[in-house]
Amino acid sequence: MDRVRTIDWRDDHIVAIDQTKLPGELVEMAILTVEDLVDAIKRLAIRGAPALGAAGALGAALAARQAPEHRDRELADLRKSRPTAVNLAWGVDRAAARLGEGPDAVLDEARKVLEEDAVRNRRLGERGADWLAAEVTDHLTVQTHCNAGALACVEWGTALGVVRALHERGRLGHVYVDETRPLLQGSRLTSWELTELGIDHTLVVDAAAATVLARGLANAVVVGADRITANGDVVNKIGTFPLALAAARANVPFVVAAPESTVDPTIPAGHQVEIEVRDGAEVLAIGGLPGTPTLNYAFDVTPADLVTAIVTEDRIVRPALGERPA
Amino acid sequence: MDRVRTIDWRDDHIVAIDQTKLPGELVEMAILTVEDLVDAIKRLAIRGAPALGAAGALGAALAARQAPEHRDRELADLRKSRPTAVNLAWGVDRAAARLGEGPDAVLDEARKVLEEDAVRNRRLGERGADWLAAEVTDHLTVQTHCNAGALACVEWGTALGVVRALHERGRLGHVYVDETRPLLQGSRLTSWELTELGIDHTLVVDAAAATVLARGLANAVVVGADRITANGDVVNKIGTFPLALAAARANVPFVVAAPESTVDPTIPAGHQVEIEVRDGAEVLAIGGLPGTPTLNYAFDVTPADLVTAIVTEDRIVRPALGERPA
Repeated sequence: MDRVRTIDWRDDHIVAIDQTKLPGELVEMAILTVEDLVDAIKRLAIRGAPALGAAGALGAALAARQAPEHRDRELADLRKSRPTAVNLAWGVDRAAARLGEGPDAVLDEARKVLEEDAVRNRRLGERGADWLAAEVTDHLTVQTHCNAGALACVEWGTALGVVRALHERGRLGHVYVDETRPLLQGSRLTSWELTELGIDHTLVVDAAAATVLARGLANAVVVGADRITANGDVVNKIGTFPLALAAARANVPFVVAAPESTVDPTIPAGHQVEIEVRDGAEVLAIGGLPGTPTLNYAFDVTPADLVTAIVTEDRIVRPALGERPA
Repeated sequence: MDRVRTIDWRDDHIVAIDQTKLPGELVEMAILTVEDLVDAIKRLAIRGAPALGAAGALGAALAARQAPEHRDRELADLRKSRPTAVNLAWGVDRAAARLGEGPDAVLDEARKVLEEDAVRNRRLGERGADWLAAEVTDHLTVQTHCNAGALACVEWGTALGVVRALHERGRLGHVYVDETRPLLQGSRLTSWELTELGIDHTLVVDAAAATVLARGLANAVVVGADRITANGDVVNKIGTFPLALAAARANVPFVVAAPESTVDPTIPAGHQVEIEVRDGAEVLAIGGLPGTPTLNYAFDVTPADLVTAIVTEDRIVRPALGERPA
């Protein structure tokens, strides 16, 4: 994973790992149009908040070559292809801000987004590892949910970036991975990344996450985020909120690792974030009765009072102590 | 479901619905030996605490026809085929207590266990519906986990027995069903039962259960139990504990519906109950990397302080208020 970027620009197009094919196959897709990019994002072939930021920026570079009318529609489609993660629209807007300078300037800005992602995530990982060593213990067993690894970013990872920093320092004991239904980003992606990195880990169903904490098997929870509101509420993959409840009950620190770009100062609190509701077929695909109504929220809201710390590349914010990220 | 018992005695053997085949097929198995019964229990073709009590009693009737040495080994194997639910060993012991009177007496006692299950569950359902109407509201939207319906019993159901009683009274709004990984008793069994009964329901992944409550979509949680310890701790399907945490956070009553036989006065508290850990293949079967270590707890412990009420056929106990069931 260190030599392959999850998403990148090559020649005149985007290349990205098709995350729907993992862990079975590591396949790279070539994406030549915004339409194909939107499709890849909607079916989660590209996913993870920071990676969506990169995809937004690179998509703006693709759109920049189109005639203005076509281009503006493409940018609008791309911005709204998934609603919950703040990073997607942020990435589009940041690169598209240079449209006036021509397509090369947009591509140049998108490439900067990718470079910064890699550098910032490493800094975030080190900061998180420092904080955990100082505030918790120097031998961490970490529980995580979904995938906030290299596959969720351009490279390195956010929550798994902290885990990797601990591993490099010889301070990591074990990782507990929630499978993360319905799309199994834990069992398919996080487990694959940890295997590639040689990091010992154990997979549990989401319903068992609380028991891992209640039994004292992990001494920290570290997850990513799709959007952090001004008050410190954290919007992240469905299942994060009950994990935070279980961490609070077990008196285990609940740590959110995300770049500054995930903080959205324009939204006061989590209940104001649009939560994506996905197709029930994702739920019914295993064992369900065809036609059964579902409510397939892709994300949930963890209230600020349950968030011990937010770690970004620049700072530590402690919402549970009343600190606000914005 | 009202005319078919989940488990019963016919001629000289046990008949039971093969629950691994649902919701695709409603298939009845004939079980002629204790060995086959133990196998059916281990692979969850027969499951659910009250149904395991019936299976234990009927299994004792099968064993009673064997020579004493063979019989005693069979009874021991049956008793320990699943460790967590108290009802299995309870059913074996109750029927086997009449071994001295001969095989017909054992079968007679087993039949009594089945009759009582049906009668007691109906009484439990009415009592639960009464309590919810009095203490919560007269228009209930209920969230449930796993399957505590007719399929978990001989007939009628415990948690779903309460739901059915509400439905018969015209007091039921909607039911939210957690899919219940890894074996999907919610999406395969509860959803099937509710469909058969014409009860409107919505299926969610386990990780979304807390969000259903946080958003105010359900005004009561009703679940079954595999063992209730003397202090009011509740051992039930993995995922029950985080649901109780979410209910407490949302100020929604968390109600456990189980027959008196589920209360185990010999065990002071939940942490002393043996929790079955099942094969990781159940977790890895969808999407997982073969060979990944798992920790597949089949049950968790909900501490008494999170349990608003335990409803049995005879009484209401409120552990969160300090009341003890034994």
